[in-house]
Amino acid sequence: MLRIGMLTSGGDCQALNAAMRGVVKGVFSKRDDVEIYGFQEGYKGLIYSNFKMLTSRDFSGILTVGGTILGTSRQPFKLMRVPDKDGIDKVEAMKHTYHKLNLDCLVVLGGNGTHKTANLLREEGLNVITLPKTIDNDLWGTDMTFGFQSAVDIATDTIDRIHTTATSHSRVFIVEVMGHKVGWVTLHAGIAGGADIILLPEIPYDIDVVVDAINKRAKAGKNFTIIAVAEGAISKSDAKLSKKELKAKMAKKTYPSVAYEIAEKIQKRTNQEVRITVPGHTQRGGSPCPYDRVLSTRLGAAAANLILKKEFGYMVGIKNGNIVKVPLGEVAGKLKYVEPDSDIIQEAKMTGISFGDK
Amino acid sequence: MLRIGMLTSGGDCQALNAAMRGVVKGVFSKRDDVEIYGFQEGYKGLIYSNFKMLTSRDFSGILTVGGTILGTSRQPFKLMRVPDKDGIDKVEAMKHTYHKLNLDCLVVLGGNGTHKTANLLREEGLNVITLPKTIDNDLWGTDMTFGFQSAVDIATDTIDRIHTTATSHSRVFIVEVMGHKVGWVTLHAGIAGGADIILLPEIPYDIDVVVDAINKRAKAGKNFTIIAVAEGAISKSDAKLSKKELKAKMAKKTYPSVAYEIAEKIQKRTNQEVRITVPGHTQRGGSPCPYDRVLSTRLGAAAANLILKKEFGYMVGIKNGNIVKVPLGEVAGKLKYVEPDSDIIQEAKMTGISFGDK
Amino acid sequence: MLRIGMLTSGGDCQALNAAMRGVVKGVFSKRDDVEIYGFQEGYKGLIYSNFKMLTSRDFSGILTVGGTILGTSRQPFKLMRVPDKDGIDKVEAMKHTYHKLNLDCLVVLGGNGTHKTANLLREEGLNVITLPKTIDNDLWGTDMTFGFQSAVDIATDTIDRIHTTATSHSRVFIVEVMGHKVGWVTLHAGIAGGADIILLPEIPYDIDVVVDAINKRAKAGKNFTIIAVAEGAISKSDAKLSKKELKAKMAKKTYPSVAYEIAEKIQKRTNQEVRITVPGHTQRGGSPCPYDRVLSTRLGAAAANLILKKEFGYMVGIKNGNIVKVPLGEVAGKLKYVEPDSDIIQEAKMTGISFGDK
Amino acid sequence: MLRIGMLTSGGDCQALNAAMRGVVKGVFSKRDDVEIYGFQEGYKGLIYSNFKMLTSRDFSGILTVGGTILGTSRQPFKLMRVPDKDGIDKVEAMKHTYHKLNLDCLVVLGGNGTHKTANLLREEGLNVITLPKTIDNDLWGTDMTFGFQSAVDIATDTIDRIHTTATSHSRVFIVEVMGHKVGWVTLHAGIAGGADIILLPEIPYDIDVVVDAINKRAKAGKNFTIIAVAEGAISKSDAKLSKKELKAKMAKKTYPSVAYEIAEKIQKRTNQEVRITVPGHTQRGGSPCPYDRVLSTRLGAAAANLILKKEFGYMVGIKNGNIVKVPLGEVAGKLKYVEPDSDIIQEAKMTGISFGDK
Repeated sequence: MLRIGMLTSGGDCQALNAAMRGVVKGVFSKRDDVEIYGFQEGYKGLIYSNFKMLTSRDFSGILTVGGTILGTSRQPFKLMRVPDKDGIDKVEAMKHTYHKLNLDCLVVLGGNGTHKTANLLREEGLNVITLPKTIDNDLWGTDMTFGFQSAVDIATDTIDRIHTTATSHSRVFIVEVMGHKVGWVTLHAGIAGGADIILLPEIPYDIDVVVDAINKRAKAGKNFTIIAVAEGAISKSDAKLSKKELKAKMAKKTYPSVAYEIAEKIQKRTNQEVRITVPGHTQRGGSPCPYDRVLSTRLGAAAANLILKKEFGYMVGIKNGNIVKVPLGEVAGKLKYVEPDSDIIQEAKMTGISFGDK
Repeated sequence: MLRIGMLTSGGDCQALNAAMRGVVKGVFSKRDDVEIYGFQEGYKGLIYSNFKMLTSRDFSGILTVGGTILGTSRQPFKLMRVPDKDGIDKVEAMKHTYHKLNLDCLVVLGGNGTHKTANLLREEGLNVITLPKTIDNDLWGTDMTFGFQSAVDIATDTIDRIHTTATSHSRVFIVEVMGHKVGWVTLHAGIAGGADIILLPEIPYDIDVVVDAINKRAKAGKNFTIIAVAEGAISKSDAKLSKKELKAKMAKKTYPSVAYEIAEKIQKRTNQEVRITVPGHTQRGGSPCPYDRVLSTRLGAAAANLILKKEFGYMVGIKNGNIVKVPLGEVAGKLKYVEPDSDIIQEAKMTGISFGDK
Repeated sequence: MLRIGMLTSGGDCQALNAAMRGVVKGVFSKRDDVEIYGFQEGYKGLIYSNFKMLTSRDFSGILTVGGTILGTSRQPFKLMRVPDKDGIDKVEAMKHTYHKLNLDCLVVLGGNGTHKTANLLREEGLNVITLPKTIDNDLWGTDMTFGFQSAVDIATDTIDRIHTTATSHSRVFIVEVMGHKVGWVTLHAGIAGGADIILLPEIPYDIDVVVDAINKRAKAGKNFTIIAVAEGAISKSDAKLSKKELKAKMAKKTYPSVAYEIAEKIQKRTNQEVRITVPGHTQRGGSPCPYDRVLSTRLGAAAANLILKKEFGYMVGIKNGNIVKVPLGEVAGKLKYVEPDSDIIQEAKMTGISFGDK
Repeated sequence: MLRIGMLTSGGDCQALNAAMRGVVKGVFSKRDDVEIYGFQEGYKGLIYSNFKMLTSRDFSGILTVGGTILGTSRQPFKLMRVPDKDGIDKVEAMKHTYHKLNLDCLVVLGGNGTHKTANLLREEGLNVITLPKTIDNDLWGTDMTFGFQSAVDIATDTIDRIHTTATSHSRVFIVEVMGHKVGWVTLHAGIAGGADIILLPEIPYDIDVVVDAINKRAKAGKNFTIIAVAEGAISKSDAKLSKKELKAKMAKKTYPSVAYEIAEKIQKRTNQEVRITVPGHTQRGGSPCPYDRVLSTRLGAAAANLILKKEFGYMVGIKNGNIVKVPLGEVAGKLKYVEPDSDIIQEAKMTGISFGDK
């Protein structure tokens, strides 16, 4: 008998179900004696031994369904070693559940925080396989995460819709795209949506440069400007602050989000009306795009292959078009950033996009 | 020679171009000696005699294009009779432009405010034909305005996307839909998106009833609730305030919008996490949906017919599936509200939707 | 105890699930003692007593799901009275199942053929309520059927996509839209997609007129023409044949469908390349559009209301925006056609669309 | 002065305009003294010196517009050296136009056939830069062509829609996807759409294996099967024929396309109803997906860079995420096929997909 535990952790995104379907179809293609334990709402289900027994039928028809049939929740890594209010050590509880159920392995789908915990469990002796789930595409060790392209599609659709209004009214429009630490979604959606200015966490902006770019467009007879802003976009001056200073400054701010701060600065200095749109959680929702369905199906099938070969301790990723296994110890705790001098940034600049950095 | 002035006024929406294409194709189907004067950015173009001469070619290929090729702007009706800072009386200026160009008529596309001004120009002796443009569907005298169904489609898409996240996380989600005075878009998108609670300006809500509905769902094992809220949703207690009292109260508020106020109340009383999504301007943007393209094409063609027959002073609308002409004097200044005891509300309630009113 | 049988019959379409959800949510909103018998694959399930007991849970989350959870099949009305190969009289078998299960009523969702059988069952003494399901919108007694607007959206999307290719290549493109007897989908998708020529079953075409329209466009410098053709489009000469003559002629034809015949004629006479696209079954598939979700939810809730009031023998429809009940005897066997001289046809012609009838 | 000729050749596809926009924005970002000569309808425009002078304005706002603003046409490579009916040698004519206009280079956007001609022109001494345009993704030297992902999205959407009908009716559905020689679009859309069977030109099928797969599903209680078939799918027995024998056999066939042949075989042997859907030209049409917009913008900007550096004779492609230049001589005449034993095929098989080959 092959006993597989499975859980999805962190913010939900598209193709979680598709990836799990890939894993389950994959193992059942070679063996019949498989039991699937679906832990509910992320690591919480593993901690409190809250699970459902699932059959291959449960994974049929979910290729195109958004969200996760297991539910998910956010559990900050830094709390994993902190005992619960009822005194339970969470890591020990997870190990206990794993061993009590006599699991052969645990399949974990998640992003950066999830991978830190998964690696911890591996260090504690559990057989872990992970799949790179995040719209942010910021996981180290894989060229691409599933959820990313679907999020780009939705953010681009938002910019497209704003475009028709922008051409009709003479205004500056800011679209705030998800991404606190990395700007991949903003970068791709910005290019795809024809944004005039793109502001990323990795490239601190100078408001003077942003204002110049808007004025230059106005002079060229273009009566509107569209700015794609990542949630974590930061000004050059703020980027120079220490973490502590920045935190203190942020605590005083009354803006709902960074777009509002930038909007205020622009409005003051250009005298143009500024409008803000925040697609927010919609970027995580709905049916995965075909790209993500193919990617997640491939990753899931490859994970099944590792399980059948009893090779554990890896994240399954994609590199140069090929599925690869990456040791969890190498993945955990690292982020994949947009490089300010990378080719794609240079190419974007050649098409006239300003990143507010010079 | 037939000289037609044309302008689009107020917030942009889908199918403005489609409607103008209908008018222009319509008049050219019967006459060749037509001149089209396209006034730029709404009434402003008429006031300051800022226009472009357009040919039928300019209206080719714009059926599916969002926004308006003429540009638009908001000009509050109450300022129309107030002289400009340069001393120009705006109404006189518009009449002057009209007569100077020797126009036979003026085609005006707009919503409620636009119609008040259009009616004023009619009273001043201009030949005016209007077309009912607004996503709000709140114009009196027509069953349907163009833009509405497209906006419903986008708002519904937002709720659909939120749904997949809602089923994965245990939370309350609020989607704030456009509509300050009327709730048509919220009502339709709410039903179409399967919202559990719908809050409209026309049906003041009792927060106790809203909280009860959420708790009832939780008890029935449904771990999430989706609430569609119109921008102008109002509580029963606020609805009892005088206009002045309400204004004073609003002035003190620090919420970016009504959804944030409702979110705070719910969070306090249910201890559930609440998330807010505001599709905002995207609801006005992008290509019109097929329904709006057919409606606006029909209305445009019918407007052309009135122009050719020299019948002026009407809004072209649709009643019971038939195109009708409605005297502008009857339309101006009236709004079409959702009736709290109408059939559609009763039917929605039968499917378990709460409107927070009992 | 309230015992409700339910079945979906004929070709599937969008919003069948949404409509059933409306019925079930509606009855459960007022009573708890309800049993739902879901007959499988249309009348077949009723004939052979093949059903599933369903709870309100089964209808949760299906608002946006295409197809029908009950399955469906086509059962020609003319065979209903013909005993099966195993000697079973189908009508008697259906009555037997109904009475054996002690049903209070039968809810039937279907189109024209389905309604004939439903009316027959009513005449045989069963309590029947029907809902107007068909993409064709050809049911007498209701302004609108659910499925129609979704089908229009898909057919329009097809024309939109063809448009970009058409403007790049100099060709004639034919899009064949569903509709053997009536042209509603073709008419609406044709207008919405900006088709240059629309050919409907209700308006027999003269190929000379069609060729003239193409040549006229070429002379005006427009290098492409898009033709929306209903499956049942017919030439003037064929329309004059008797049913028998036409059948004999059709039997000899080797064209896969009518679009190929028209393409051949045009290619011969204009020397232009002609391309054909047939969206086919996709027009019935996928998630219902928001319009259909609202319509079907309203109709379903209204059907629930009739059931609760024990008013049977009606189709629930919509007239002038209001939900109405129409006696089944009036509905059965009648079709709602596009009127060749109706307003919408006149308006379409004013925008330059040719219907091939001169 | 920098004089750039530009043309799009072969079947149109998504992101042609986006790619040209990238080139033009790129060159204008560094130089002002640029003239763009847009040749009309592919090589034909170059042969007959039919062109338009274009400014950077002409390329503004076309990022999202399908088709090509230059028009296109198919000109078989094998006819390039055959003099026209008016005696013109086409290759000499193209060289003549190029030199007469004093062009610095020629930017050619096209697929496989286009590249052969482009390479010929390079051999004749012209400065040529090409961009890989084709939905087929079959160009050698680049991991990805623009148009491909957009086509996959549309083909997947077709399969998605068919899915809801398939689950409602008990039938076999065949979706015929574009691809005469290579199966990339079918493979990706098949996986993304959850097809049960995928038939590609590169993996000849055995009808017995296909029938077995259908029967196995029926036995497992799955009442429908979806088959994604490439236009160029071929049976094992046909694959053994010589080119001449195959041609002779094809000449006798009366099927409109390969899907019909396969459908007939299946219908005969499984006694199941089979339905065929052919999305056809829609796969080339409409707005490019965000993935293609980013890819084509990057490729266009990189092409601009080569032009500015006067490096000619290359196709600009993408390899492992980086933009690369590939000598035209290496690209021309080679196709990039799906490898029958590649990882993606193995992964797809693990999820239960049959390729009809075992």
